Amino acid sequence: MKQIRVAIIGATGYTSLETIRWLLKHPVAKITYLASRQQEQPIHELFPELLGRIDLPIAPFDAHAIQQAADVAFLCLPHVAAMQHVPPLLDAGLKVVDLSADYRLKDATVYEKWYKHAHSDAKNLAAAVYGLPEFFSAEIKSASFVSNPGCYPTAAALGIAPLLQAGLVEPADIIINAASGISGAGRTPSQLHHFPERNETFESYGIASHRHAPEIQQTLETISGHAVHMLFVPHLIPMDRGILETIYLKAKPGAKLENALAAYDRAYRGKPFVRMRLNNLPSTKYVANTNFADISVKLYNGRFVVLCALDNMVKGAAGQAIENMNLMFGIDETAGLL
Amino acid sequence: MKQIRVAIIGATGYTSLETIRWLLKHPVAKITYLASRQQEQPIHELFPELLGRIDLPIAPFDAHAIQQAADVAFLCLPHVAAMQHVPPLLDAGLKVVDLSADYRLKDATVYEKWYKHAHSDAKNLAAAVYGLPEFFSAEIKSASFVSNPGCYPTAAALGIAPLLQAGLVEPADIIINAASGISGAGRTPSQLHHFPERNETFESYGIASHRHAPEIQQTLETISGHAVHMLFVPHLIPMDRGILETIYLKAKPGAKLENALAAYDRAYRGKPFVRMRLNNLPSTKYVANTNFADISVKLYNGRFVVLCALDNMVKGAAGQAIENMNLMFGIDETAGLL
Amino acid sequence: MKQIRVAIIGATGYTSLETIRWLLKHPVAKITYLASRQQEQPIHELFPELLGRIDLPIAPFDAHAIQQAADVAFLCLPHVAAMQHVPPLLDAGLKVVDLSADYRLKDATVYEKWYKHAHSDAKNLAAAVYGLPEFFSAEIKSASFVSNPGCYPTAAALGIAPLLQAGLVEPADIIINAASGISGAGRTPSQLHHFPERNETFESYGIASHRHAPEIQQTLETISGHAVHMLFVPHLIPMDRGILETIYLKAKPGAKLENALAAYDRAYRGKPFVRMRLNNLPSTKYVANTNFADISVKLYNGRFVVLCALDNMVKGAAGQAIENMNLMFGIDETAGLL
Amino acid sequence: MKQIRVAIIGATGYTSLETIRWLLKHPVAKITYLASRQQEQPIHELFPELLGRIDLPIAPFDAHAIQQAADVAFLCLPHVAAMQHVPPLLDAGLKVVDLSADYRLKDATVYEKWYKHAHSDAKNLAAAVYGLPEFFSAEIKSASFVSNPGCYPTAAALGIAPLLQAGLVEPADIIINAASGISGAGRTPSQLHHFPERNETFESYGIASHRHAPEIQQTLETISGHAVHMLFVPHLIPMDRGILETIYLKAKPGAKLENALAAYDRAYRGKPFVRMRLNNLPSTKYVANTNFADISVKLYNGRFVVLCALDNMVKGAAGQAIENMNLMFGIDETAGLL
Repeated sequence: MKQIRVAIIGATGYTSLETIRWLLKHPVAKITYLASRQQEQPIHELFPELLGRIDLPIAPFDAHAIQQAADVAFLCLPHVAAMQHVPPLLDAGLKVVDLSADYRLKDATVYEKWYKHAHSDAKNLAAAVYGLPEFFSAEIKSASFVSNPGCYPTAAALGIAPLLQAGLVEPADIIINAASGISGAGRTPSQLHHFPERNETFESYGIASHRHAPEIQQTLETISGHAVHMLFVPHLIPMDRGILETIYLKAKPGAKLENALAAYDRAYRGKPFVRMRLNNLPSTKYVANTNFADISVKLYNGRFVVLCALDNMVKGAAGQAIENMNLMFGIDETAGLL
Repeated sequence: MKQIRVAIIGATGYTSLETIRWLLKHPVAKITYLASRQQEQPIHELFPELLGRIDLPIAPFDAHAIQQAADVAFLCLPHVAAMQHVPPLLDAGLKVVDLSADYRLKDATVYEKWYKHAHSDAKNLAAAVYGLPEFFSAEIKSASFVSNPGCYPTAAALGIAPLLQAGLVEPADIIINAASGISGAGRTPSQLHHFPERNETFESYGIASHRHAPEIQQTLETISGHAVHMLFVPHLIPMDRGILETIYLKAKPGAKLENALAAYDRAYRGKPFVRMRLNNLPSTKYVANTNFADISVKLYNGRFVVLCALDNMVKGAAGQAIENMNLMFGIDETAGLL
Repeated sequence: MKQIRVAIIGATGYTSLETIRWLLKHPVAKITYLASRQQEQPIHELFPELLGRIDLPIAPFDAHAIQQAADVAFLCLPHVAAMQHVPPLLDAGLKVVDLSADYRLKDATVYEKWYKHAHSDAKNLAAAVYGLPEFFSAEIKSASFVSNPGCYPTAAALGIAPLLQAGLVEPADIIINAASGISGAGRTPSQLHHFPERNETFESYGIASHRHAPEIQQTLETISGHAVHMLFVPHLIPMDRGILETIYLKAKPGAKLENALAAYDRAYRGKPFVRMRLNNLPSTKYVANTNFADISVKLYNGRFVVLCALDNMVKGAAGQAIENMNLMFGIDETAGLL
Repeated sequence: MKQIRVAIIGATGYTSLETIRWLLKHPVAKITYLASRQQEQPIHELFPELLGRIDLPIAPFDAHAIQQAADVAFLCLPHVAAMQHVPPLLDAGLKVVDLSADYRLKDATVYEKWYKHAHSDAKNLAAAVYGLPEFFSAEIKSASFVSNPGCYPTAAALGIAPLLQAGLVEPADIIINAASGISGAGRTPSQLHHFPERNETFESYGIASHRHAPEIQQTLETISGHAVHMLFVPHLIPMDRGILETIYLKAKPGAKLENALAAYDRAYRGKPFVRMRLNNLPSTKYVANTNFADISVKLYNGRFVVLCALDNMVKGAAGQAIENMNLMFGIDETAGLL
């Protein structure tokens, strides 16, 4: 296979670190450019675990230099910053995978409402392909620009979409009780995530107010073709990585468990990174440091309870981004990810 | 105040340890008898933290000796064992607080269905007062036998009952998403709770199959006078202590947030151990090692979301047992608990 | 007993929170004044666990107002700030317990070397009594100003001093391998203590460079009358609270284990907060949320290995401060602490 | 490269799981046989994270069948069991890497003293090569039987041996203060490692009594050619994986820090899995899920303090075993391990 040269833009956050970790094990991808405004330190001082594993300076963002060095750019920038960097990279002919939220919401007014910032790149927003391979692999394969889904939305879409598609559940009565490890909060210290505040505690951090809610809604509506009403309540788990969503869906009259299982089978047969757990329940530990999403479903008293677990840093971020890269370059979807 | 002499029966489990911890700080209660079949070790070898803090031998269960030594017995035994020990203690004239599940379910057939064992003490089952002081303090004050509620049921009842009583929510559409620290699983080692299996993971351990479900249902029906349908899904949090329940309740037409807040106010005004959190959300950390239950409520799109946090070992077990003892002996409900 | 009215100066850090927690359970002490520059929030918004437990506004520092309101002031300020607030409080006739490092090092030049700031209060530095009750209770009882020891130095002194006093170990060959939970690092967020950086890891954070090293040395030299050479290496444990020091001491020729045990017995007989563990080893869990220090000693191949565990927030900070207050006011040393 | 077919004997413990995880990513090794007495379940029910990743039945131990299926066997059995399985595998012509302790101690009487069991396989004990590649790669390359080192001994040898070899430290005054995550304790549940007992605590679990002590001594003596006296004190860290050893070594007169750094450089230049940390200190987090060992050294007041961190499950077990396999089959030492 031909080598894929990768630039990482915004190299100093956790999604960058996770992307680097995985790309170092990838059979054909090679990291050739690290861009950040923080250039005073080598990457292995920012991330001491990388000592001896990668020998690249941190360079300024320079679309021309990146064009020379790389075939694809991963944007690991915060929102707003991302949409300032995407246009020059695409104009330079690079393929781009954006891990930020900037190109996930198709409606710029929804973006502005939730992110409190006008969208400045309508052209590429329209062109961006939503990088959820289980549902959009055809579009991803021919895309030059992929917007990588959020961690919670990936778990929600994988857990809910097949039942919506199959018409087994009410689209107006969806409750997503979600919980995440703390790496999802990023690398910037805060009182909320100071170790002695966060350790040995469990709490919700927002009811129907998390920015991933409109992304979940859009994705479910896009896949199912129905308007969806849902309630999303995230919680913080005192651990590093992992998301578990416990999803409550009202069964339509007559919907049976075997219908649900068949719907998942139709949706995920041949999909390498979704595992149905039939004999036990998902656990974040079973998917930690992997690109798998694990799903179980039960029917109780007229309600489907769906459990979906994934690693927020892998299937919820860097792993899925690499999966998208693999598809965009026509190589095995699982390369470097099993 | 007159001293209250306390016997602890089943002294070698976590609820016993927690009861001892709190009673050592109680202004008038004094532990005078520790009973267990495991008598070969002093209590401070079983629980090294008690070294130098309590100097009592572990003695065999002997109702006559306990009657001489104590005014009240706390039963910290597993279910089934508890109902074998309650009758002789009551017959000996002691007051009894039972921390097991044996006397919580009023219907012996329901008990048998969930606990896979026939109930052998119908008389005391009928007489047992359910020890949830926020709703049954009058009965508790005059009781000689109190059945101490389960940890999850305490949080569920405190979170839901006021809204049911006030007729603000549909009794047939209750979802309780619950999560607990691991001390709730007791002191016996198991694969499931082996440190490397349990650390850094989050998972559900049962959908509508936990033994606390019928207790929750019974309590809500008793308090509200309505038949209730509910779905209870518990999860395990990788930490020592604390329960958070995230409860989804369908609002009746016209029910408003201010109605809900007024209902909680009516229910808990003057109750020393329930705190309404109006400006922030409950966290298990805020109630750890305390007898408080913290509650918040939000209304979103026709559904009340109630959060209730408490310490499973305190308000969910030993603390509430002591609260019951205080009421049974006519002393300040908060003695030794603030 | 007469009530002791307590002012807490610097109310917004972890040592303040811990002091408040314990004082709320104290039989005769009552918190009457909370001082901080952060006055915009009630204390229960800064520390949500205090909701409903304390109803005092946060007031500015005003020595006159504090004099009216309180008998004793606990200073929970950072170093440097502490020595700016001690003089007016002492001048106002209050008793003072300072939990900062400002008055621990008797030699102002040593202070300046380690804390990079000149000492501005030579008079009170000379008068301050080092509040380690196991060795200085007579001085503490008659003191109006006590400097509360650091957490590591408390464990080191308790573990080592008896063997030095008894002449059983070489004062020039002392190695203290120490480890602490993260609450010891204080409440201000930092990259180092950001949850995803600190969780699931163990590391040293300084070899012979920690500011507690000169305090340990001074205390050991004061108690033993010998010059001491020691090496102090602290580590961070991914947990909230607790210190364990594993101390390696070279036995003098002929020194036996029974001599060591006798030395500890002489030092700590009748001392309520030191527990010798003869049948098991200390664990931070056994002392968490208590004012106890647990000690074991072994002799192996010419070296005593001493283990000393305590809770850095209690015996290492707030608990010992209250113990000192109890002594200063002539009440039972253990009041509110068992 | 030619495929290497691997059998794993004793497939149901943590070292087996870790070996499987790594081999699944290995470019030429392929797992072809899983042997255990527990055959009733598929491997993905024992280890749910393996669902969909490996499709092999668990088979009985049958040396002939294994010979047909595999080129090399990894023994992930407990001690004693291992030495019952090694002879038939070697007799069948397989290469063998034994991850147990059975062939680490060259002196069968020392083995018997520490493991309380006579050694039954003197022939292979004599032939076994100690699989520490940084020091014995020549022997490993030509070996058909490698005894994989223990986790603590690997860290101790890597940290100490270069300084001993260079004659910079006193061989009679070595103190190893070690700490490990809990995966090192294996998969069998116990009171000691029950989550609520182990979480949020730190303690030593043996002073000079751990079975890895004689292995460390033997290794240091073998490499340095000197008799060694040392004191080894292990501790338990409340986390999954990682070892940090803080090693105190008495410097010989005139020994300088630069001499030590030069000694490490000589020992580890070109060695792919040892990283000297010159600008920061080792942390277990930096080596978690990697085969690296990280080392720092400081000189203070006549004593070298060496810090060595590694992942007990990788460089301390499965990773090093695969490294040995790579060497035994003449492929790149780092294959599948970076």
